[in-house]
Amino acid sequence: MKNSLLDHDRLSVINVGVEAFTRSVRDTGGQALHVDWQPPGDGDPDLAWALAQLAGDADDADCIGARIDRANAIAVERIIAAQPVLADVALHARDVWPDMARTLLHAGAPIAWERMCGPMQGSMIGALLYEGWAETPQAAETMLARGDIRFAQCHDFGAVGPMSGIISPSMPVFVVRNAAHGNVAYSNLSEGIGRVLRFGANGPDVIARLRFLETVLAPTIRAAVRAAGGIDLKAIQAQALLMGDEVHSRNAAATLQFVAAIAVPLADAGCAPRAARESLAFIAANSQFFLNLSMASSKAIMDAAHGIDGCSVVTAIARNGVTTAIRVSGLGGTWFEASSDTPVGLFFPGFSQAEANADLGDSAICETAGFGGFSLAASPALVQLVGGTVTEAIAYSREMYEITVARNSTLSLPNLDFAGAPCGIDIRKVVDTGIRPAVTTGIAHKSPGIGQIGAGIVRTPMSCFAQAVRALAKNQC
Amino acid sequence: MKNSLLDHDRLSVINVGVEAFTRSVRDTGGQALHVDWQPPGDGDPDLAWALAQLAGDADDADCIGARIDRANAIAVERIIAAQPVLADVALHARDVWPDMARTLLHAGAPIAWERMCGPMQGSMIGALLYEGWAETPQAAETMLARGDIRFAQCHDFGAVGPMSGIISPSMPVFVVRNAAHGNVAYSNLSEGIGRVLRFGANGPDVIARLRFLETVLAPTIRAAVRAAGGIDLKAIQAQALLMGDEVHSRNAAATLQFVAAIAVPLADAGCAPRAARESLAFIAANSQFFLNLSMASSKAIMDAAHGIDGCSVVTAIARNGVTTAIRVSGLGGTWFEASSDTPVGLFFPGFSQAEANADLGDSAICETAGFGGFSLAASPALVQLVGGTVTEAIAYSREMYEITVARNSTLSLPNLDFAGAPCGIDIRKVVDTGIRPAVTTGIAHKSPGIGQIGAGIVRTPMSCFAQAVRALAKNQC
Repeated sequence: MKNSLLDHDRLSVINVGVEAFTRSVRDTGGQALHVDWQPPGDGDPDLAWALAQLAGDADDADCIGARIDRANAIAVERIIAAQPVLADVALHARDVWPDMARTLLHAGAPIAWERMCGPMQGSMIGALLYEGWAETPQAAETMLARGDIRFAQCHDFGAVGPMSGIISPSMPVFVVRNAAHGNVAYSNLSEGIGRVLRFGANGPDVIARLRFLETVLAPTIRAAVRAAGGIDLKAIQAQALLMGDEVHSRNAAATLQFVAAIAVPLADAGCAPRAARESLAFIAANSQFFLNLSMASSKAIMDAAHGIDGCSVVTAIARNGVTTAIRVSGLGGTWFEASSDTPVGLFFPGFSQAEANADLGDSAICETAGFGGFSLAASPALVQLVGGTVTEAIAYSREMYEITVARNSTLSLPNLDFAGAPCGIDIRKVVDTGIRPAVTTGIAHKSPGIGQIGAGIVRTPMSCFAQAVRALAKNQC
Repeated sequence: MKNSLLDHDRLSVINVGVEAFTRSVRDTGGQALHVDWQPPGDGDPDLAWALAQLAGDADDADCIGARIDRANAIAVERIIAAQPVLADVALHARDVWPDMARTLLHAGAPIAWERMCGPMQGSMIGALLYEGWAETPQAAETMLARGDIRFAQCHDFGAVGPMSGIISPSMPVFVVRNAAHGNVAYSNLSEGIGRVLRFGANGPDVIARLRFLETVLAPTIRAAVRAAGGIDLKAIQAQALLMGDEVHSRNAAATLQFVAAIAVPLADAGCAPRAARESLAFIAANSQFFLNLSMASSKAIMDAAHGIDGCSVVTAIARNGVTTAIRVSGLGGTWFEASSDTPVGLFFPGFSQAEANADLGDSAICETAGFGGFSLAASPALVQLVGGTVTEAIAYSREMYEITVARNSTLSLPNLDFAGAPCGIDIRKVVDTGIRPAVTTGIAHKSPGIGQIGAGIVRTPMSCFAQAVRALAKNQC
């Protein structure tokens, strides 16, 4: 019986919870077996009680937990059945929202000018220059600071945008229709990499590129999309998962599929050859071009799952560069907000973690639909970019199964022997397990205009889920 | 000491070699530990002696083995440094080989009409109809049987063709130049799937499609390739390995990359819009379109490694549907031939193993260059098609390291944490280990014209390597 826990010759302890307590036992020659456990609700008794109220009871089909489970089943059914299709390209956002006037849409939860991060402020200034509302960056800043411009979050307009996510009235937007549910979602078009508006750059080159998007790229894609009768984005996303993309931070295969999907109709859609060539070359040169489409597709998928009474599934995660906010299907329009974490990953040469902006952009909508960090097992090539091994990539997807409602049979992950991607983040499971959603993301420099300085992974703050659990308990009990 | 091998109370045996011998020991209550071993050369003392002569000796830099190792190092250096580029499309094979006259090129080693498999005979008949040398299949068969047509293997013309691999004088061919070594390789163009010539179909629809390849597709791709100044095939192959292809039996991502590569220059290359549209649609609808390019690329890579004195690296594996033949760098133009095995895999609904033709086509050139079965770890999605698990796919690549000279640092396998693909099959290692090259392959119906009935994996016959080892020993000692 020597060395067993029942050895009375020396102190033997099973330690549950805080690992540091094992040290004093071991320091005095005793042995301590540590059990990795933390109380649900992170030790907060109110939160633990709220969670207990929302839990299921196998013997009671009428309990709150069972009702939530049924609501969640409807949500994941809608997510799995979704058929997002790129139906059209609106040449100007104001064609979609005629009442926009001087409104700028931005990523994340609403935020005042003074509190915005550097990249978002830089983007706003650029948007005023692009719209011709200001002649100089200084004039633009004055207008923005004194409240001449209305701000609104993209999500309130059924839209999403990566990084600062600015959509101004003259910008073209993708129109994505969920053919299974009838809802529509929007996103802006990708500007490519380097000095771009979404990272806060606003020089003449940036404005000129936005003009190209508006006058050349958008009309060309629109002609192709109309000639094709729409492009099935879900099919592209599903195929891309078989081709090394997780369709958030890696979209190389998805972008190639999109090029193929528009190149064929474009060949005789009646476009000017030069516009067709420039547009195809622009898209083909940017392996992340599909990101904005993946986001709009994910938005169209998740909006269909929003507004189900009692449902505890997260339908959006959005970051404005200061806070991260989540929206929950059964909790209406409320956003549950907390300070953003800063992504951890690999940096381009010459940059470091200290220069990283806090988590930014609407792109985490992809994770809510099961892509990105949830499908990381599909993307060993991305793992190399963010710093990690294939084994770690697979571990992320496995971990996300712990906090989701179902497996999406329409999205196969090859490296998990074609298991369906984790589907439907349940706020109860996040709080109960302490596992926060993993989001793959580009990393922005915190100063405007410098652009992307790395890529990595970030976790959504636990506080968002804790707040949501409390609200759902209040709402349902 | 009970139950150990030294337990004298009962019979304890270490059995090496034939596992069945353990049975009699166990039947009589004894215990037998089996060691999985087989003598080099499969028990053939002459072959074992040849192999021993070719083996290295760490203490003797002048021994035959050390000389072979140095020759092999040159070979893999050339394989790794190769830069195959699609330089042009010849509208007719006779433009490349003006002396072709009534010659038909075919896959594999030379073979007489009477010995050809059904699909190859069917393809030959179709080629005569396409060329207008015969009016009816019956007339074509008569001409072929009485020797009116000259046959030659594709490889003798620096070419490769999938399945029956027929190249007739009017067919267009890809022209692939290895920019690093200056050599050139050729292949025919992919006809797509279904009823196609390469599986022995020869009806009017098949001939009409061949005419489309000649008059629409080839001129269109040629215009794009010329406008692009050539297309880097090695880059496409390397990227495709990051995107779930092994670029032999799965070319989905490679084909998309090829579409993107030609769509941009095509947009204003001055082609008729209808030809451009039809060509792009034809390519985009066939996820295996890139196979013929992957083969020509592999041929251009491996020809650069051929003809190195003393080199034991395999530079081609080719199958004519009856025999499989290999060519070895240091053994000139000799082909070492043996009866083909039949691929094992999954069959399309309604077909079975009994209907499978023996291994067919020049496409195993891909494996000699490190693709296909050697890069199977890169392609979980293919594994699903041929019947197997991701773990098995990875095991194939690991196994192929045992019989190759090096790892190709320019071809990364994501699921092996980006290790280089196995590079340079060494005939000595194949015979020594008993591990035969694994080749991913389509499975043809043994009757002409039915087409592909499945996909699977086949092993190259050991006899090819045994013959080559004997020849190299004779040649070098």
